[in-house]
Amino acid sequence: MKAMLLTKFGGPEVLQPGELPEPVPGEHDLLVEVHACSINPVDFKMRRGAFGKGRTLPYALGFDVSGVVRAVGVSVKAFKVGDEVYASPTFTRHGANAELVCVDARTAALKPANLDYVQAAALPLVTLSAWESLYDRGRIEAGQTVLIHAGGGGVGHIAIQLARLRGCRVLTTAGRPESIGLCRSLGADVVINYHEEDFAQRVMRETSGRGCDAILDCVGFETLDKSLPCVAPNGQVMTVVGGAAGALRELFVRNATLHCVFMAAPTLYGINPERQGRTLAAAARLVESGKLRVHVGRVLGLAELPEAHRLIESGHTTGKIVLRVK
Amino acid sequence: MKAMLLTKFGGPEVLQPGELPEPVPGEHDLLVEVHACSINPVDFKMRRGAFGKGRTLPYALGFDVSGVVRAVGVSVKAFKVGDEVYASPTFTRHGANAELVCVDARTAALKPANLDYVQAAALPLVTLSAWESLYDRGRIEAGQTVLIHAGGGGVGHIAIQLARLRGCRVLTTAGRPESIGLCRSLGADVVINYHEEDFAQRVMRETSGRGCDAILDCVGFETLDKSLPCVAPNGQVMTVVGGAAGALRELFVRNATLHCVFMAAPTLYGINPERQGRTLAAAARLVESGKLRVHVGRVLGLAELPEAHRLIESGHTTGKIVLRVK
Repeated sequence: MKAMLLTKFGGPEVLQPGELPEPVPGEHDLLVEVHACSINPVDFKMRRGAFGKGRTLPYALGFDVSGVVRAVGVSVKAFKVGDEVYASPTFTRHGANAELVCVDARTAALKPANLDYVQAAALPLVTLSAWESLYDRGRIEAGQTVLIHAGGGGVGHIAIQLARLRGCRVLTTAGRPESIGLCRSLGADVVINYHEEDFAQRVMRETSGRGCDAILDCVGFETLDKSLPCVAPNGQVMTVVGGAAGALRELFVRNATLHCVFMAAPTLYGINPERQGRTLAAAARLVESGKLRVHVGRVLGLAELPEAHRLIESGHTTGKIVLRVK
Repeated sequence: MKAMLLTKFGGPEVLQPGELPEPVPGEHDLLVEVHACSINPVDFKMRRGAFGKGRTLPYALGFDVSGVVRAVGVSVKAFKVGDEVYASPTFTRHGANAELVCVDARTAALKPANLDYVQAAALPLVTLSAWESLYDRGRIEAGQTVLIHAGGGGVGHIAIQLARLRGCRVLTTAGRPESIGLCRSLGADVVINYHEEDFAQRVMRETSGRGCDAILDCVGFETLDKSLPCVAPNGQVMTVVGGAAGALRELFVRNATLHCVFMAAPTLYGINPERQGRTLAAAARLVESGKLRVHVGRVLGLAELPEAHRLIESGHTTGKIVLRVK
């Protein structure tokens, strides 16, 4: 079959027309005749060498597809030959920059009936990214304020709509007039032109200094760093960009979450202090039933507080140091 | 009343005995006669100047208390004078290094009936930290593998037990013989002596290369960085240490969560690929009902793939670029 192939890692010129053997569907696969595919930032990252370890070139990229099912694997029940489907093919085998592609049937769905193939091919990867970010991981709720970076981009323009559908107030950033117009037309409440003003200052002003309950970062790097002070207490950040930092990349490739747990937040910010009372009451029940025990490594008098500080700063204590006051 | 006071920021010697006016309980407060208090790393951090902005010295630290209720605020219904309680006083007023302390009644509970005041004072802050990390934020589940750093420490020794109670397999790190012994006695499945071996290598070996579903970091800095590659796909990290990095500190003081969303994870790791199919099916319903629309900024032929790469790399595209294949 015909394909556009990644012949070696490099610039756009390394993508060249060529031939690949027709793919053979595995047990859970659909063999899809590609009517349209779309492009995402991961395509140029992979073209430059990302996720390249152990990969044999030449290679077809393309991680969005719409088309018609031509064959199904032996375990596939949900689809039949002739179905019009859309999906995001996995990164680990040939993608949809070709006449045929295999996709795992479990990751596919019938394409929206009212869309043509071109429109349908635009949806899968960005919809999966925005949906997982806002609904599955972030669990955004009605009434929350959500900041979406690059609202005119692939993920961003879907995310604006998903956040609005959930009843959230949507702030978004965009730079070019077309992007700003698109964000407005999709229902963003506030569109911040990051060429004209500091987005962080504007976000804090728009939220009366509180920040946003959720921030979806589709840009990474400095945009992500600058966004962190714009998070409200108990808020969350979703990033779909691995970023430059080594630590963040480790979390990203694992699809992982980092919870920064600051136990003073309920009283400092006055948000649900009752949670702490409930927790201590529940812990008391566990202690009374012998299921939870506390280890006191050292007991001192209150006047020995400086010594208690020295001990805990040394890091050489086991369990807790307690001061008897009365 | 008598108190041990932070007279200026500095070493343990700045903590000196002194007098404070008796605190007056506010609307939601309990006035607690302090029988015991305990010490946590936040005490020495605040002694050195952390959270010091806008604070008037001298100051009583101490963010764990057990004692007897001597007065209640006008809105307090859940406690009465004479109740034996335990709580973690807020960071924003005088703490429990004193004869009396005010605590928000909503954050307090009756102390476990089977503990004396010394034991009860050891519990609040570390229990709240471990509980929020593992149960409220991390939502650990039976059968998961959890790594707890510094299992012999305050938060760690409670966390080991909470993770075991939830039915998790617990790996923990410790260095001194007493700490190792404590971790073993609390039911940790694997106790790693970080003086004797590389904890990350051991964790990967113990999990057959998969990593841990959840990691609770009570150490921060390099320990946190080194832990990230030990997270299993779709896993999570909870840190109770603000850490050195500016970005992480911004998240920490906000009690915030960072989700790193890598949409390829389900197919790369073979974990629940059905979620993507369900998401695309749900998105198709939204599109068909006119609630979600896609913006195609440009349509090219497959042979124009290099140009599509140039366009998306430029960052100057709106919505999606689609390639028509058939």
